[in-house]
Amino acid sequence: MNCLEERILKDGVVKEGNILKVDSFLNHQLDVELFDEMGAEWAKRFEGVEINKILTIEASGIGIACVAARHFNVPVVFAKKTQSVNLDGEMYTAEVESFTHKNKNNVIVSKKFLNENDKVLIIDDFLANGCALQGLISIINSAGASVAGIGIAIEKGFQSGGQIIRNLGYRLESLAIVDGMDPATGEISLRK
Amino acid sequence: MNCLEERILKDGVVKEGNILKVDSFLNHQLDVELFDEMGAEWAKRFEGVEINKILTIEASGIGIACVAARHFNVPVVFAKKTQSVNLDGEMYTAEVESFTHKNKNNVIVSKKFLNENDKVLIIDDFLANGCALQGLISIINSAGASVAGIGIAIEKGFQSGGQIIRNLGYRLESLAIVDGMDPATGEISLRK
Repeated sequence: MNCLEERILKDGVVKEGNILKVDSFLNHQLDVELFDEMGAEWAKRFEGVEINKILTIEASGIGIACVAARHFNVPVVFAKKTQSVNLDGEMYTAEVESFTHKNKNNVIVSKKFLNENDKVLIIDDFLANGCALQGLISIINSAGASVAGIGIAIEKGFQSGGQIIRNLGYRLESLAIVDGMDPATGEISLRK
Repeated sequence: MNCLEERILKDGVVKEGNILKVDSFLNHQLDVELFDEMGAEWAKRFEGVEINKILTIEASGIGIACVAARHFNVPVVFAKKTQSVNLDGEMYTAEVESFTHKNKNNVIVSKKFLNENDKVLIIDDFLANGCALQGLISIINSAGASVAGIGIAIEKGFQSGGQIIRNLGYRLESLAIVDGMDPATGEISLRK
């Protein structure tokens, strides 16, 4: 069991509606020492894979990506989310629809920071239905860059996002896969 | 001249309207090695100051704060920005009005992550008129916590935010203070 899995079992809180609250260490208060261990774990799993850039998305992905990037010695680019359509032509944009929030967002990256030579590791905090991730992949494809791999902190294994990404042939390394949660008992089942 | 000042002179781009574009290393593409050097510099400047938490604000502050936090061995909390008023009682909230964008935003931190024992170092990427910073200070005061110091990457010395904060008696350490910019020549004047 890795450091993140241990922490989820210790400090994760299950709420009604398949919600796993990890705001005490992952996405509001941030345990950067844990992020460093997560970065080391991804570096081990992606050893030998050519990676020259990490792509993440605001806001919760940024801290994890930046601390992890120290293990890869590459810069981070974070995609911006906006509902605005006030964009000039110097941006890659993907419109993604959220299953959870029922709204549409643009995922945006400046063309200056992605090109056809980039081998990109995507890092994000959560993978559930995978909308944000689909937008990031779309943007990497638009730039002619390639997806070297995908590192997710917590995958909700009972939602479809992870399976779709694996079906598409991407290498997805989730540090913890939650297969089930019980709000009555607070029990969290992690995939072995 | 520190690493950030050198980088601003090398890669900062001046645009009309007192805009300094540093998106190639500070707030869109992120040079995490530079962030690490910035963290080391703040650690040196705040040596001997009791700090047990770093507070920043989404989105651009998060990466800088997380990498810097490795030099302080403390967790990071990031404040959320939202225009929503759908808040329950478990949040500290400050309403701040942006001089730049003419809109009002809420700055929000869960009550779980700030309390009267916290000695907080605030970190953010930019200080101009200081609206976001004023909101963060207001939230720290609401929690009964104390502001141990403020670390800013780039202060626009020709706008009032930094002076107000110093007048209020806070210890503000800006790694680079821009005193003037010329969009015609691209020249950037840094305070010595």
